[in-house]
Amino acid sequence: MAKCLVAQSGGPTSVINATVAGVVKANQLNPVYDTVLGGLHGIEGILDEKFYDLTNMSDDENRVLRQSPSSALGSCRYKLKRENVADFEKLFAILKKHDIRTVFYTGGNDSMDTVAALDEYAKANNITGHQFVGCPKTVDNDLMVMDHAPGFASAAKFIATTALQTWTDSTVYTRQDVFILETMGRDAGWLAASSCVSGIVDVLVLPEHPFEKEAFLAAVKKHVDAKNKCYIVVSEGVHYADGTYLAAGESKNDTFGHAVLGGAGNAIKEMILEAGISERAKVQDLSNAQRSHATEQSKVDVEESFQLGMSAHMRSIDPSFTGMTVYVTRVEGDKYDVTYGATASSNIANHVRHFPEEWILPNFEGISKEAHAYFEPLLVGQPEIMYDEKGLPRQVKPYYMR
Amino acid sequence: MAKCLVAQSGGPTSVINATVAGVVKANQLNPVYDTVLGGLHGIEGILDEKFYDLTNMSDDENRVLRQSPSSALGSCRYKLKRENVADFEKLFAILKKHDIRTVFYTGGNDSMDTVAALDEYAKANNITGHQFVGCPKTVDNDLMVMDHAPGFASAAKFIATTALQTWTDSTVYTRQDVFILETMGRDAGWLAASSCVSGIVDVLVLPEHPFEKEAFLAAVKKHVDAKNKCYIVVSEGVHYADGTYLAAGESKNDTFGHAVLGGAGNAIKEMILEAGISERAKVQDLSNAQRSHATEQSKVDVEESFQLGMSAHMRSIDPSFTGMTVYVTRVEGDKYDVTYGATASSNIANHVRHFPEEWILPNFEGISKEAHAYFEPLLVGQPEIMYDEKGLPRQVKPYYMR
Repeated sequence: MAKCLVAQSGGPTSVINATVAGVVKANQLNPVYDTVLGGLHGIEGILDEKFYDLTNMSDDENRVLRQSPSSALGSCRYKLKRENVADFEKLFAILKKHDIRTVFYTGGNDSMDTVAALDEYAKANNITGHQFVGCPKTVDNDLMVMDHAPGFASAAKFIATTALQTWTDSTVYTRQDVFILETMGRDAGWLAASSCVSGIVDVLVLPEHPFEKEAFLAAVKKHVDAKNKCYIVVSEGVHYADGTYLAAGESKNDTFGHAVLGGAGNAIKEMILEAGISERAKVQDLSNAQRSHATEQSKVDVEESFQLGMSAHMRSIDPSFTGMTVYVTRVEGDKYDVTYGATASSNIANHVRHFPEEWILPNFEGISKEAHAYFEPLLVGQPEIMYDEKGLPRQVKPYYMR
Repeated sequence: MAKCLVAQSGGPTSVINATVAGVVKANQLNPVYDTVLGGLHGIEGILDEKFYDLTNMSDDENRVLRQSPSSALGSCRYKLKRENVADFEKLFAILKKHDIRTVFYTGGNDSMDTVAALDEYAKANNITGHQFVGCPKTVDNDLMVMDHAPGFASAAKFIATTALQTWTDSTVYTRQDVFILETMGRDAGWLAASSCVSGIVDVLVLPEHPFEKEAFLAAVKKHVDAKNKCYIVVSEGVHYADGTYLAAGESKNDTFGHAVLGGAGNAIKEMILEAGISERAKVQDLSNAQRSHATEQSKVDVEESFQLGMSAHMRSIDPSFTGMTVYVTRVEGDKYDVTYGATASSNIANHVRHFPEEWILPNFEGISKEAHAYFEPLLVGQPEIMYDEKGLPRQVKPYYMR
């Protein structure tokens, strides 16, 4: 018997830990590996041999782990580059030294490329006895092949809920009010678009279309003129036709030159005020809360993420299962249902799945019926969250802090 | 039999509607008034005779109303000034015309002053047959007399939860990271201080102390040097000894001169970067979400707010009960319990209750044990939230939109 290792990479989500919990639970149900190691801080920590033994995790901890946001094993932005052969040599030596047969790696595009690269390296150098399995996650929902990426639905649920609530808040006065909600999504507009599930979004600005200032201001003006209010949702990655981000464009004049200060939300706020369309505009940037607000996980999302971890473990019993990414896809039919599949990690690596062009309504008017039908089943259901005696959600202590 | 009227004023909270629900329910249990009118947009709408009949609200709607954030009756910033006699004359004429005996008015300091002013006017002009009853609410928790203000505990629960979650998110990388959470609280630091319930706040900046930049930067540096991370919570109202807000000070150089752009969080971010204490700093401004995130109401808060509405209605059976504000106060003892009291609205109007000096630890180190003991019972318990078929929380359609 050998060991397996599970590690996390890229930006955290509120359900990425559920996939780790799934791997651990599957190995308790069928102990294919004598040890389940958690690799701390992704590839970065594995290269430093920083592990935490997860094998005998209690069921209570497993449940708390599923409702713990962020990456309990720590994360990294370290990119394993194919030309950097020393990294590969070191990593395979560490796997051999610790008798690690299978590496489960959770992450987005870059992480799936890491899985593909490790598999390629092993094959090119006739190294056998190791398997690399990708478990996708990203709040951005921009991964190819799968219907949706674990982590997205919970972020979308928080965004749509917060849109509904802040809209309700922003309409209470008789005065003129423009409210701007900024979501994550540098390249793809899935998160911003999901806000439309709330049914209250007046103007939706996605990164899939080059930003046209005049058309945008006209759309805002239409709503302000009609009802003295306008609720706008904008994706952080919105940019002009030449690729310049709105955020970057507007914060040029900042005293210290930090382009981060503004944000797309503040940029369009300034445009609206400058154009005299409204006297007031308020911005809420959902920032990190949208990917870590695990107290409002989507039940669909947390269950699928957990089962994805189990599926990855169970499929790894086949020694030829390597360089593969497991994923969730939707079954056609009236009622929402999914199946779990697997594809070569290279099919996912380094691609971006944009929000579909045909789902975008013209003139910033939001999303089509088909898009609504896509989103809605993903947000349904709330897991039963366990709270501590102070009224706060129970979370595992991060393994990288133990 | 006469009518009563309930209206809302000031900034919304996530439980202010529960007080309205309490008034309506109490009148169903004991129909002292033949009609319960909702006054739309506070005093502003009452002066326009904009009412919505709430008398026969269904129990389902009453329950949904309790979990609906913001002010379902609309709000106003209109201040009834004593010298503006025409407003008073008009208002009393409207009350007479519609046979309105009792006005229940929910709000903060200003709204309690409105209640006091209406009572004074009636007494000074020998107008009888009307009662004015204040129902306090404010996320800021800065109202005198009472132990805590309805609305505060739910906002505090959201803030402490989000602090815990975003801290978890902000520590996953091995790199240097400073995270800054900005809360509401222009004059009082209750909301910012409540984040400390999470147990993860490194540096707490309250408006109760004039801001000292060098001492603040030293506190941040201590944490960054020790562990490469620092989690900071700052109240929007933090200011220098001369009264200048941090936000205002730092956004002076903004292209369009909008002082709102910066915010205290961005101001201290710039200080930290400029001082070279950290290479990275991220700001999350909780903005309107902190007062409208009703999906995570504190159960204590929503129940107390509902019962406060009932208490106000029940006490109003006594015709001499006018110019009074009902409130919740804590009973001394090991287990959290409250009683409901009433005080002259003038005792609450136009005062600010600051976060107690003796609860503030030196050097931005957070709050004392006594402060923790104060906060913790307030955050306990989650009401059972009802969701719609899309996975979003059910809310009433605002009455001012019907």
